[in-house]
Amino acid sequence: MSYQPVLIAGAWRTSAGTTKTFTAVNPMTRMPLPDVYPVSPWKEVEEALVAGATAAEALRDIAPEARARFLEVFADAIEARTEAIVSLGYLETGLAIEPRLRSSELPRTTDQLRQAAAATRERSWCHATIDTRRGLRSVLGPLGGPVVVFGPNNFPFAFNSVSGGDAAAALAAGNPIIAKANTGHPGTTKLLTEAAFEAVQATGMPEALVQLIYRTDHESGTRLVSHPLVGATGFTGSRSAGLQLKEAADRAGKPIYLEMSSVNPVFVLPGALEERLEAIADELFASCSLGTGQFCTKPGLTVVMASECSEAFLQAIAARFEAPPGVLLGSSGLWTVGDAVQQLCAAGAELIVGGREVEGAGFRYANTLLRVSGEQFLAQPEALQTEAFGVVSLIVFARDTAQMQEIARHFEGNLTGSFYTHSGGADDGIYDLVAPIVRTKVGRLLNDAMPTGVAVSPAMNHGGPFPATGHPGFTAVGIPAAMLRFAALHSYDRVRAHRLPAELQDRNPTGQMWRFIDGTWTQGDVV
Amino acid sequence: MSYQPVLIAGAWRTSAGTTKTFTAVNPMTRMPLPDVYPVSPWKEVEEALVAGATAAEALRDIAPEARARFLEVFADAIEARTEAIVSLGYLETGLAIEPRLRSSELPRTTDQLRQAAAATRERSWCHATIDTRRGLRSVLGPLGGPVVVFGPNNFPFAFNSVSGGDAAAALAAGNPIIAKANTGHPGTTKLLTEAAFEAVQATGMPEALVQLIYRTDHESGTRLVSHPLVGATGFTGSRSAGLQLKEAADRAGKPIYLEMSSVNPVFVLPGALEERLEAIADELFASCSLGTGQFCTKPGLTVVMASECSEAFLQAIAARFEAPPGVLLGSSGLWTVGDAVQQLCAAGAELIVGGREVEGAGFRYANTLLRVSGEQFLAQPEALQTEAFGVVSLIVFARDTAQMQEIARHFEGNLTGSFYTHSGGADDGIYDLVAPIVRTKVGRLLNDAMPTGVAVSPAMNHGGPFPATGHPGFTAVGIPAAMLRFAALHSYDRVRAHRLPAELQDRNPTGQMWRFIDGTWTQGDVV
Repeated sequence: MSYQPVLIAGAWRTSAGTTKTFTAVNPMTRMPLPDVYPVSPWKEVEEALVAGATAAEALRDIAPEARARFLEVFADAIEARTEAIVSLGYLETGLAIEPRLRSSELPRTTDQLRQAAAATRERSWCHATIDTRRGLRSVLGPLGGPVVVFGPNNFPFAFNSVSGGDAAAALAAGNPIIAKANTGHPGTTKLLTEAAFEAVQATGMPEALVQLIYRTDHESGTRLVSHPLVGATGFTGSRSAGLQLKEAADRAGKPIYLEMSSVNPVFVLPGALEERLEAIADELFASCSLGTGQFCTKPGLTVVMASECSEAFLQAIAARFEAPPGVLLGSSGLWTVGDAVQQLCAAGAELIVGGREVEGAGFRYANTLLRVSGEQFLAQPEALQTEAFGVVSLIVFARDTAQMQEIARHFEGNLTGSFYTHSGGADDGIYDLVAPIVRTKVGRLLNDAMPTGVAVSPAMNHGGPFPATGHPGFTAVGIPAAMLRFAALHSYDRVRAHRLPAELQDRNPTGQMWRFIDGTWTQGDVV
Repeated sequence: MSYQPVLIAGAWRTSAGTTKTFTAVNPMTRMPLPDVYPVSPWKEVEEALVAGATAAEALRDIAPEARARFLEVFADAIEARTEAIVSLGYLETGLAIEPRLRSSELPRTTDQLRQAAAATRERSWCHATIDTRRGLRSVLGPLGGPVVVFGPNNFPFAFNSVSGGDAAAALAAGNPIIAKANTGHPGTTKLLTEAAFEAVQATGMPEALVQLIYRTDHESGTRLVSHPLVGATGFTGSRSAGLQLKEAADRAGKPIYLEMSSVNPVFVLPGALEERLEAIADELFASCSLGTGQFCTKPGLTVVMASECSEAFLQAIAARFEAPPGVLLGSSGLWTVGDAVQQLCAAGAELIVGGREVEGAGFRYANTLLRVSGEQFLAQPEALQTEAFGVVSLIVFARDTAQMQEIARHFEGNLTGSFYTHSGGADDGIYDLVAPIVRTKVGRLLNDAMPTGVAVSPAMNHGGPFPATGHPGFTAVGIPAAMLRFAALHSYDRVRAHRLPAELQDRNPTGQMWRFIDGTWTQGDVV
């Protein structure tokens, strides 16, 4: 057993929070892991804020090339620690080393950091806009204060507070970060922070560019996100925790980007079922059970048209759901899944398979399938959209197209919405009536594909309307789009030429950067 | 006297709110104007929401070209009513017909609508992004519900709830609007809405594309901005009203864009004063007294270095402030200016000129100049940044550069920050130490110019960090940038080609539209 330090103001140090501590738990054995982590008192959190604000000022004098270098050295330093990170990640989360942690999530994480480095170096992300006639130039710049990142439990590397998408985007946009570790994997987060801090030192970055705390009490958390020195917050996690932070940040006028909950509706239209029922049942179960159902994009709600064929579809899914369940990330996963299933049943859903905790060493909950009629869904639409963060799926049987439209109109905001339709166009009539309604309720609309699998692409939207996120205009995944969250719009009005940032001077600073000059996107100079 | 109708669901009708009414007041005479306006009850507001949601669905099938045509016909219809609009605008606001209302603000308003039309037609604003390798395409699309617009009292045309920047941006982005008139100029708003509704009918738009109510009680206002059917809200007005709406919208997860308050700091550095003290005093007074000081960008706080020269500057300004005051927009202007001056004095500011209401027919408050030391400013920085919406300005005397930096560090978020410096570079040392701090506190940084005068340019930022606005990433002025507030990010993942919106299909729909295809901005097709 060893007492783990926090990283504040460029030094690993024993936390002042020695009276309150916590340990991580191995979800496969339900046994605590040996290391002990502090709950940081407010004074320590405030020290991180002050150091972060100083780092934000210092960052102004550091060129994009140097910041890009930092992100690359950070990625290299993660790879150099692969074995340690993967091993501890496995112990803290129970996620499979292969094919998940080593060959998929870790490379995704370093790839994301390198994409962020490339965007930092290339600079087009900042949307430099030049109006030569009026002497006005604008650019997206840093926020002027540190970005606080709360990472989720389900992606210990790729959405990690220090190495994940929010951190990469915030750093690439020119901000320092304060990482608040997910308490499910504090050791993994510490290893990743060691890699980050090594890169900070190797590339001469401001020492408080990256800081780490593991946990605070609730009051300190809300004070943190609403503090005058904070630039913004990125949060991925539960709706209840997210809403508490959102309220505090909103009241203080501090930007907060949240990714909270989503049931990711999937419409399987009649022609598609006629055509390929078994294949779609395979896809649905595979997507639903990925990561033991603990993906933000897990398909939790499937809408079909009531028919013999859709009854057969239910049976086909049910057979697949009989498979033995995987291990959940933690004990809280067991409670929340159980609660959610209870809520769904209380709201009129009928249990088809599962619906109970599985006893044994690991945290396991039986794969759970439920069904409900369209009428009943419309009677309690809110309760029947309760997210169950596990292998739980609800099938809604619509009476007709009009009811399917009405069901779609009652959707809350979601990350994704999917449509499976007949390959020959037999479902296009229904699609054209329902998909436009779903379009404005989701961030990403899919055809003939399940929503899990979120590519790091400029055209990705891992976002959507509330309560999936806090704002429908931004994505949490995708470089450079995700960077836009952690930037402020800076206009320069008749500012003398030599005082303009390089991105806005007449000469294109890289010869490659795209800029919007007098109504034209160009890689050229102002002429 | 005549009882004025509301415009709901495509019909001018007598409001259900006949028990509560209000009239506008002529600020030059303090006498009520003859027309009577209803306070709409909640039921009527909800009818507008439902009709607006239907219009949002109908808009999906209307091509950008038709929406652009609507905006142009709207601009034409305003021009056809110029005399009536200008005359009533003058009576309701007291703003000069010339050079303000007829030759400046009205053309600005129609120009803005035509710029919005051009952006709608041209389509580059929606940032169509295509990743051919991953089958992902994204675009900014409409919000799926009506945008509520609360316009301010100080620009009856160019920021009007129905014809101003927020309305133009929301409509151009493909959303219906519900205009909540500013109660200072309900008749002007009605005339502008008549122009809008004529254009709706002439161009075959959904009948509830534009709706108008004049006033609600507070509870209905907060219900309106937080209603499930609402797309977003644009608000320009006082900080207290804005914060109430913000809290309600934030809690419901509904986007709200606010432009609330700003003191627009101006730094006049020593070399500039040595060089051109009288000219800068002229500029400061001219900017400060424009629109009787009721501009969001009025320079309310000037920072100088304490010296004999800056004392002479104060005297030069004071002499100009002795001029007779203009007419304020309403009685509430008198109270709030008086309150603000009292707060500034209570926080240690010393009154140099003015500080009292001027008796007579119109609402007038003496031009008011105050001074305070840097020490005192730092002792009560919040109170000394109280916005006074009139010809009121506070001069802060900093002891040295370090104190000037500290003053800047204590600024709240502002729309603008200005620096006057020596033309030969004698102030550049101080500029380099202070301007970077100001940069992250303001939306628009100016050199050698006062902040009033907000060009409608793609490179404008009429925005800034809280409490100037609710989000540092967006501008309320400037096409197409202002449209981004009223859009949602829509990603399409492997969606069949014929189902993609025209902007994302392989063929460039206009041959002119800029799209970001596989990392390159191009006007070409996907090849």
